[in-house]
Amino acid sequence: MPVVTIKLAGSLSRDQKRKIAEEITDTLERIALKPKRYTYVAFEELPDENWAIAGQLLDEEEG
Amino acid sequence: MPVVTIKLAGSLSRDQKRKIAEEITDTLERIALKPKRYTYVAFEELPDENWAIAGQLLDEEEG
Amino acid sequence: MPVVTIKLAGSLSRDQKRKIAEEITDTLERIALKPKRYTYVAFEELPDENWAIAGQLLDEEEG
Amino acid sequence: MPVVTIKLAGSLSRDQKRKIAEEITDTLERIALKPKRYTYVAFEELPDENWAIAGQLLDEEEG
Amino acid sequence: MPVVTIKLAGSLSRDQKRKIAEEITDTLERIALKPKRYTYVAFEELPDENWAIAGQLLDEEEG
Amino acid sequence: MPVVTIKLAGSLSRDQKRKIAEEITDTLERIALKPKRYTYVAFEELPDENWAIAGQLLDEEEG
Repeated sequence: MPVVTIKLAGSLSRDQKRKIAEEITDTLERIALKPKRYTYVAFEELPDENWAIAGQLLDEEEG
Repeated sequence: MPVVTIKLAGSLSRDQKRKIAEEITDTLERIALKPKRYTYVAFEELPDENWAIAGQLLDEEEG
Repeated sequence: MPVVTIKLAGSLSRDQKRKIAEEITDTLERIALKPKRYTYVAFEELPDENWAIAGQLLDEEEG
Repeated sequence: MPVVTIKLAGSLSRDQKRKIAEEITDTLERIALKPKRYTYVAFEELPDENWAIAGQLLDEEEG
Repeated sequence: MPVVTIKLAGSLSRDQKRKIAEEITDTLERIALKPKRYTYVAFEELPDENWAIAGQLLDEEEG
Repeated sequence: MPVVTIKLAGSLSRDQKRKIAEEITDTLERIALKPKRYTYVAFEELPDENWAIAGQLLDEEEG
């Protein structure tokens, strides 16, 4: 029953999501003995404008 | 002051959200004695591509 | 696959959690047509000292 | 390493997000001694239809 | 109705939480025009063993 | 800047957490090109009594 949430700025391709979900689910099965069918992985993609590091929005850092 | 977050893949109609929020708020008042005005319910709808079960994205399962 | 998180200050009895989980899962089946076996409900109980409303910790309000 | 998540209904302007992220990061440095570079702030903006208070969706309240 | 969640490793004193909640609630009122009574702030304190940066648990970094 | 949250019922050993954090951080570097130093992994362990699947608390299932 693990629920894995991956929150990030920007977006991932469908293929990146597919591989990441597969690997993380595999990691949790091998190391934590969680049967695959119980593992949920959710991707939360936020615009750069909605994420700050060190008090600065990510879309400023590009500047 | 309960904050209820409902995270799911796909989307709900406005009417479904209205009824779900109403019932959950009522459940928390009856069973946990939380006054209705303090209960927040937030719906987080994710695209099927952003949700995996058993290491497989939900939009693959249709295939 | 809905994941329902109920975050609150204070704690609930085991029996309250049992009934709330049962009702919410039922609500999501009836209204959103989500099969029960896919619904996860997680309770996150925080100490009153870790929750503020209107800028005031909940354990102050008692004073 | 604090991760601050600000979940709200409606949306903020880029400038509001910039100032809020700056102030919160500063607050955590001054009061909790967390170096700025470790603090992440994420804004999660939900449509009014996805948020309920007291069992009522926020877009009903306008009515 | 903003819900602010502050997730961090280690713990804060009651007084730090009190001041942080007060300042953040004030920030959201001044900048985002959110009435104070609607703002919830929740602190989620995790043991160092439950938090990793750069793939390393925080309690290793001390070593 | 990805923030990965792993929410589960029960608990993991320190060694399981160490390996899981390492592998997930590595997965995000290889597949999503996220530099390791920006990735946070947080483990949220909940008692079995605080988690329900199919409307049933996990500590009932053992019965």
